[in-house]
Amino acid sequence: MKLITKPHSSQRRLIEILRVINAAEKPIGARAISDELSSRGYEVGERAVRYNLKIMDELGFTKKEGYSGRVLTPLGRRELSDALVDDRVGFVNARIEEYMYRSSFDPGSENNRVVVNTSLLDKRDSERALAAMKAVFDAGFAVSRRVLIQDEGEEMGGAAVPRGFLGISTVCSITVDGMLLRGGIPVNTTFAGVVDVREGSLYQFTDLLAYAGSSLDPIRVLMSRKAARITGAVKTGNGGLLANLREIPVAAIGQARELLEMAKGAGIDGVMRISEPGEPNMGCPVGAGKVGIALCAGVNAVLAAEELGAEIRTTPISSIQEYGRMKELR
Amino acid sequence: MKLITKPHSSQRRLIEILRVINAAEKPIGARAISDELSSRGYEVGERAVRYNLKIMDELGFTKKEGYSGRVLTPLGRRELSDALVDDRVGFVNARIEEYMYRSSFDPGSENNRVVVNTSLLDKRDSERALAAMKAVFDAGFAVSRRVLIQDEGEEMGGAAVPRGFLGISTVCSITVDGMLLRGGIPVNTTFAGVVDVREGSLYQFTDLLAYAGSSLDPIRVLMSRKAARITGAVKTGNGGLLANLREIPVAAIGQARELLEMAKGAGIDGVMRISEPGEPNMGCPVGAGKVGIALCAGVNAVLAAEELGAEIRTTPISSIQEYGRMKELR
Repeated sequence: MKLITKPHSSQRRLIEILRVINAAEKPIGARAISDELSSRGYEVGERAVRYNLKIMDELGFTKKEGYSGRVLTPLGRRELSDALVDDRVGFVNARIEEYMYRSSFDPGSENNRVVVNTSLLDKRDSERALAAMKAVFDAGFAVSRRVLIQDEGEEMGGAAVPRGFLGISTVCSITVDGMLLRGGIPVNTTFAGVVDVREGSLYQFTDLLAYAGSSLDPIRVLMSRKAARITGAVKTGNGGLLANLREIPVAAIGQARELLEMAKGAGIDGVMRISEPGEPNMGCPVGAGKVGIALCAGVNAVLAAEELGAEIRTTPISSIQEYGRMKELR
Repeated sequence: MKLITKPHSSQRRLIEILRVINAAEKPIGARAISDELSSRGYEVGERAVRYNLKIMDELGFTKKEGYSGRVLTPLGRRELSDALVDDRVGFVNARIEEYMYRSSFDPGSENNRVVVNTSLLDKRDSERALAAMKAVFDAGFAVSRRVLIQDEGEEMGGAAVPRGFLGISTVCSITVDGMLLRGGIPVNTTFAGVVDVREGSLYQFTDLLAYAGSSLDPIRVLMSRKAARITGAVKTGNGGLLANLREIPVAAIGQARELLEMAKGAGIDGVMRISEPGEPNMGCPVGAGKVGIALCAGVNAVLAAEELGAEIRTTPISSIQEYGRMKELR
């Protein structure tokens, strides 16, 4: 049997450094890159980073900007997106599991850390955007009413909110998966898709994208395809919501229901439907021995604002936020 | 996009009933079948079971035996093994996750429940079989020295140990996965295979079978193929061990190492090698953003006994056992 060959580790290190620089959104130096690599589990000293940066400058992937900071060149960005697609297979699931692990939502505790999606909203559009978000919360089509609104200059998801914008964090449904996991329940995110809403009722999934093996986040893909029709679902009862499905063992369903009920009391919900064991959930397949739980995507609220023409850019599964800092939008 | 069509639920219910009867190993009545279905998450009342049994008697899948008990006919057994392979896709992972969820190994606690493999050993072979198992434990090629040895007539894994046999329970590596899960770490069992041992050192995986999507347990397949050479590994330092690999997020590796160290102190180990982030583990691929942990299969000890000609039949991932009842075999 032939094993899948993995890229050589020095090549992987270069790619990881490109990733760090790309994620930084402002010029970043060797020390900060080394720290960030360490937090991702790659121990590469500052000196080794400096050596690798020199190579990448020569290759034309990076260039100096300001005092010893590095940014990616267009060539570096292309290298990053093309290189090692093999390396990114399954990366979405890895990212989700990392955030499940790093979050800590316990309905009985005060000290909760949740997974958030972050959005940058043009201040000029803030009134109608927040009104659209409220309407989605009222309809129960998101995960939580709680949001964190930050002004320009404040730090959101590792970068400052730019001038003229508001930063908005909304609770991501991965928070619920993290809660189930902390209860000792094995959770697998399997599909994302669009759930048809007809005459005010959830109907069934129309399109589905699998998480397993994907290198792109299915929710991001559906967002960029503008596959949802949130405003219709809210205003006329006919539309489509982004949603995703996770599977848990049949044996864990009792405990899961209790946890979901407690979470609801703490302001986190978004449950659309829980399937019978092994039965499809609104048309979405569920494995044998498993129960499928469909949740609204946390981004539905900001997508509604976007549908109404607000200038808003959203990064799903963006960072971890103190739940206590987030306030209900009413 | 076309959804995978799932079998109709009434058909699934019939198959579940066949499964329960098959697992019972003695004639079983409608009330007991209904209870067992309920514990698997299928709510089917006693009356509905009775109705379904009548249908299956007519189809020739089941027949009465004794006072209202049912057993499978050869036709029923064939139906069960052929039917709904679609239904069993991913079933191994579902079973593993169920046992991870039901186990509760916490190195700091006294009240531990572990996942065990159960074996039936012909009493006439017990001396050399137990000697072979000890040698595997001494070499560190299993998960734990602790075993539960039961005499004929005692209940093991839901059935009585037959006359002339000993029942032997050994700790299954899924116990370790359950421990990581309870620590809030997402765990995915990805591959099982044979690890080559050369001159006393672990070399690399020779063959691999994937858990994802399999309807057969990879460890069982490797056992029935007699793919291991445990005795060689123990006696001459050259052979092959059954092993499996699980992935955890890179961010969780520090906590995982602590838990593994504590487990070792409590008599549960079996760690072969922990990979670097995203790097192959002894040739077995590991996903981006993940660390791969290779553990010895818990069945290696009983396989060594089998290799030496002992009459021993083993069921991996068979049941949950109180760890406190198990004693070190020295």
